[in-house]
Amino acid sequence: MSRVSAPAQPTARVGIIGGGQLARMSHAAGTPLGIETHVLDAPGAPAEAAGARLVVGTADRLDDLARLARRVDVVTFDHEHADRAALQALAARGVAIRPGPEVKHLAQDKLHARRRLGGDLGLPVPAFTSVQDVSEVRAFAAAHGWPVVLKAISGGYDGRGVRIAADVAEAEAALAALGRPALAEAHVAIDTELSVLVARAAGTGESRAYPVVETLQQDGICHEVVLPARVPGALAARAHALALELAEAIGLEGLLAVELFVAGDELLINELALRPHNSGHVTLDGCVTSQFEQHLRAVLGWPLGATRPVAPAAAMVNVLGPADGSDPGHRVARALAVEGAHVHLYGKAPRPGRKLGHVTALGADADAALDAARTAARILEGER
Amino acid sequence: MSRVSAPAQPTARVGIIGGGQLARMSHAAGTPLGIETHVLDAPGAPAEAAGARLVVGTADRLDDLARLARRVDVVTFDHEHADRAALQALAARGVAIRPGPEVKHLAQDKLHARRRLGGDLGLPVPAFTSVQDVSEVRAFAAAHGWPVVLKAISGGYDGRGVRIAADVAEAEAALAALGRPALAEAHVAIDTELSVLVARAAGTGESRAYPVVETLQQDGICHEVVLPARVPGALAARAHALALELAEAIGLEGLLAVELFVAGDELLINELALRPHNSGHVTLDGCVTSQFEQHLRAVLGWPLGATRPVAPAAAMVNVLGPADGSDPGHRVARALAVEGAHVHLYGKAPRPGRKLGHVTALGADADAALDAARTAARILEGER
Repeated sequence: MSRVSAPAQPTARVGIIGGGQLARMSHAAGTPLGIETHVLDAPGAPAEAAGARLVVGTADRLDDLARLARRVDVVTFDHEHADRAALQALAARGVAIRPGPEVKHLAQDKLHARRRLGGDLGLPVPAFTSVQDVSEVRAFAAAHGWPVVLKAISGGYDGRGVRIAADVAEAEAALAALGRPALAEAHVAIDTELSVLVARAAGTGESRAYPVVETLQQDGICHEVVLPARVPGALAARAHALALELAEAIGLEGLLAVELFVAGDELLINELALRPHNSGHVTLDGCVTSQFEQHLRAVLGWPLGATRPVAPAAAMVNVLGPADGSDPGHRVARALAVEGAHVHLYGKAPRPGRKLGHVTALGADADAALDAARTAARILEGER
Repeated sequence: MSRVSAPAQPTARVGIIGGGQLARMSHAAGTPLGIETHVLDAPGAPAEAAGARLVVGTADRLDDLARLARRVDVVTFDHEHADRAALQALAARGVAIRPGPEVKHLAQDKLHARRRLGGDLGLPVPAFTSVQDVSEVRAFAAAHGWPVVLKAISGGYDGRGVRIAADVAEAEAALAALGRPALAEAHVAIDTELSVLVARAAGTGESRAYPVVETLQQDGICHEVVLPARVPGALAARAHALALELAEAIGLEGLLAVELFVAGDELLINELALRPHNSGHVTLDGCVTSQFEQHLRAVLGWPLGATRPVAPAAAMVNVLGPADGSDPGHRVARALAVEGAHVHLYGKAPRPGRKLGHVTALGADADAALDAARTAARILEGER
């Protein structure tokens, strides 16, 4: 035990643009498979604290991206903010970026995504148009009614970059805040929001979708998830098929989360994420293969894992930084007293409203799972 | 993304004596709970490669143990080889060592364990005695018959330090190899081997046992595990109760694996391990809370997790270094094509016969789970 151990060679080296909680959980999923993860981020990033190798740099500098790429077999993503031109330049040098820059662009440019999905691919999306000024918003509203949903074309996430304008005055203010052009969309009377996670493996094209989950939003953020979604089986089957069709149509290499609106009998595509997604955290303890392991397998072109649930129901609840600035980590032992609650902290310093972790729980039904996860999350947030 | 992130303070710091695969998997289990792990070992240890903090040193030097202890809230174990006197000296300085040196000694000194369990505690163990020379072995055999099992009193594990002597000549050779005194035991006609894992939390004394598993040995090493054990329910219930009784009787703080022989209707205690155990790897994907998370929760005095299985059956099969010296890591993608197989590699350089990883699988029954785990393990070992 005193001699230097000879460690094994890694089975693969994966570079992740961004070292946040998604990269942290990807690192953890890769360790048992012998995968070494390298993340591009600043010192102290959540993935680094868990043991991922750090490459100091930012996602908008080609030199930084190239330094990451030199260390790994394949480059993938923790977030949507990598610079498109830099990714294209990197791909032109022969670096394996998965998903590729053009596919990733679907999550970076909302107008482009709407045109591609609703236009070329003929998939169901809300009515939309590009607007430069309030007269164009008024014209759109004349056809589709008020309120109008206005979105920044790029840079928005977790509800940021989205405004709902009830009239011309609100549209004016929204455009000023969001920048021009903006994306205008018909406001959908949403009954339920769903999310479908689908993986498609590089090279082989093998694809697998997870069971459709129901997402419960809070302030525009996916805050709670129930697996499986409490919707009719036929509707879930349509959502499942739609996600697989989309993955195939765009030539996905990696992981895609498709967020969907249910409005009456209608299913409309809301947002896409081209990376592991908050709505997929429930797979960590709820499915045979977690989204993080599946993501690594997909970008490496390895066989995909089983996506079936391990319990009749599972739930996920986010843990946000409490208003008093206190650290949920101080309450972890108390939260673990909730039978069956799995606590996942991200190693991030507390700040009010910041996503600091999540809790998952299995259950005999959705209510039982949701109740356990909510109870533990509220203890972590200091509410109990 | 370019600024330095402020990481959270860890929820707890746990020091592990030894940085092997058990510490590696403990580190992975601790990350979502915000626990920071520090391991005492040589550079390149499996836990270090996964992201645990390394303290360079050995388990037989008090100074090294003290350096580890200064960095953490509690000290625990990856193996059985820590020096007893050094642990006692450390405990005398007020360091929280869990389990404590006297409890740990039950896994370090087989004669002491037999006397404590079979004598003071009146628990079922094979007939045994201490032997200095072959005349004492002969006297023991006169009472209990040949063959006699001879064991090194300390230092043995994974079948090392155990000889079965059919006669006086073999006993003579065994004693020469094992050292004197040795432990002599009656040879048990084993029908089945079982293992029960029990956790007991420091401070609170909360204890929970996992479902009883069946262990299938190969060359004296636990090589395959089936959960739950294929034995009558009443027998499994006795084994379960015995492990909980033992944990309570010794004042366990942490994790205890009790290996048991089934001989007819009789249940006999074979070995104890005071740490996570190979027979508990099946809990990684097979139970709500893995043995690694449970171990951390127990030594920290946190509430224990649910131990129930997540499927009707689960199995675990070791991955050993192939005779040709090749690295199972090169075959990981092929092994993942086995539906439902969870591959866990330890990051250790290949050497023939060396434990390099394991595979777990869930199933509708033991045969299905075992078949999937075996198929993947054999692919990793290059046999298919």
